Amino acid sequence: MMRRILICIQYDGTEYVGWQRQINGVSVQEKLEEALEICEKRRTGIVGASRTDSGVHARNQYAHFDTCSNIPVEKYPFVFNALLPRDISVSKAYLVPNDFSARFNARGKEYMYRILNSRHNDALKQRFYAHVPLHLDDKIMDKAAKTLIGRHDFSAFEAAGAQSKTTVRQIEEIEVVRQDDDVILRVRGNAFLYNMVRIIAGSLIQIGLGRLDEGAFKRALETKNRLELGPTAEAKGLCLNKIYYELGGQNE
Amino acid sequence: MMRRILICIQYDGTEYVGWQRQINGVSVQEKLEEALEICEKRRTGIVGASRTDSGVHARNQYAHFDTCSNIPVEKYPFVFNALLPRDISVSKAYLVPNDFSARFNARGKEYMYRILNSRHNDALKQRFYAHVPLHLDDKIMDKAAKTLIGRHDFSAFEAAGAQSKTTVRQIEEIEVVRQDDDVILRVRGNAFLYNMVRIIAGSLIQIGLGRLDEGAFKRALETKNRLELGPTAEAKGLCLNKIYYELGGQNE
Repeated sequence: MMRRILICIQYDGTEYVGWQRQINGVSVQEKLEEALEICEKRRTGIVGASRTDSGVHARNQYAHFDTCSNIPVEKYPFVFNALLPRDISVSKAYLVPNDFSARFNARGKEYMYRILNSRHNDALKQRFYAHVPLHLDDKIMDKAAKTLIGRHDFSAFEAAGAQSKTTVRQIEEIEVVRQDDDVILRVRGNAFLYNMVRIIAGSLIQIGLGRLDEGAFKRALETKNRLELGPTAEAKGLCLNKIYYELGGQNE
Repeated sequence: MMRRILICIQYDGTEYVGWQRQINGVSVQEKLEEALEICEKRRTGIVGASRTDSGVHARNQYAHFDTCSNIPVEKYPFVFNALLPRDISVSKAYLVPNDFSARFNARGKEYMYRILNSRHNDALKQRFYAHVPLHLDDKIMDKAAKTLIGRHDFSAFEAAGAQSKTTVRQIEEIEVVRQDDDVILRVRGNAFLYNMVRIIAGSLIQIGLGRLDEGAFKRALETKNRLELGPTAEAKGLCLNKIYYELGGQNE
């Protein structure tokens, strides 16, 4: 009997070209599919919820696959973790309906963007943080970020060349919080355009430095002009934190 | 004029054979000395406060060196960070008296040992945490740990083959604290024997699992028998957190 399994995945994206298989390097998807092939004894495709970019991390990425094996669902994390490299892990597995899709059933996502705001970079944080040596005004960043809340046409917030059917997205929650030298952006929305969170983060850094004014987001939403915004922030500060589904329990 | 400089160093020890130069791999000391040689245009030895083992991390290691250059002391972190690999960083530099020693003037040290106590390992934590999948009773671990407080002959807590002049050490503070799935050992003492913190951590894990009773530390102190204790816990969970000097300011 065919069963569909949804798994929750963590990865340190430093060594990967991103979630999706690429010809120019090793992807997270490829590593998961290789592990699954050993376990299932046949090639099995894995469909991810979010195509994270090269160098981006995930605390709760989700993906589904189909199996005819009789491995109990709760054993899958053990099987994967025994076969995966140590910078990818599987924390949970769920049996889902055969028409459930990790990608299309996702109702929302939360990303974190972490900035180390200290004069010198820190060897213990550098894998997961962008480093900004000049002082950031996190209060102004938080205020500016909140102007993005709501349903808007975010076409100015998309990487050049991306081909989205619609560029309307909804940001439900967004905040910038400082804890000592860590300045953390947390943003939850229904979905995000290609590079959208990194463009928001890069713009907020410019706003925090006083090089871009608080009104930049409002102008960019109105004019749809990418040039109103700051540069795309580097990948390593970004982490896919949560994905929301309508199933109970797995969406932490 | 010769000046002595004390620097504060962070490192992710994963890729290193430890602090000290070794013939079998790359050490943190070597990387710092290479950077300093480029900057000073001559070979300059760096004396570290603590000889951390292969795979052990440091949040605040200290080391000193002598220089005849006229580089302002506050510029040294910039110079080092421009030349070091990204998993080693220098956060501070101080001018110290010419007879000051990072090693011999240290009055105390604090180590952390981090355990991820969850069924499955986590790709985002695995560099800095040991993984224990079975439940640990952190309350019993904390109680047992506190029996080590005071001045004792810790000869049972030393790796075989170590040749210390005296095995008497003083533990000033020790605690085991749980935060969700993280179980953290923090221990402060005047000095530590070779592998002492990892033997304490390995024993506490056995105590937390109920495989060793709470009285093990007391018996080991009395009998001086290494066999009363648990195995040496793996290096990657250990982090040299603080070093205490009598100078003000730098010992955070």
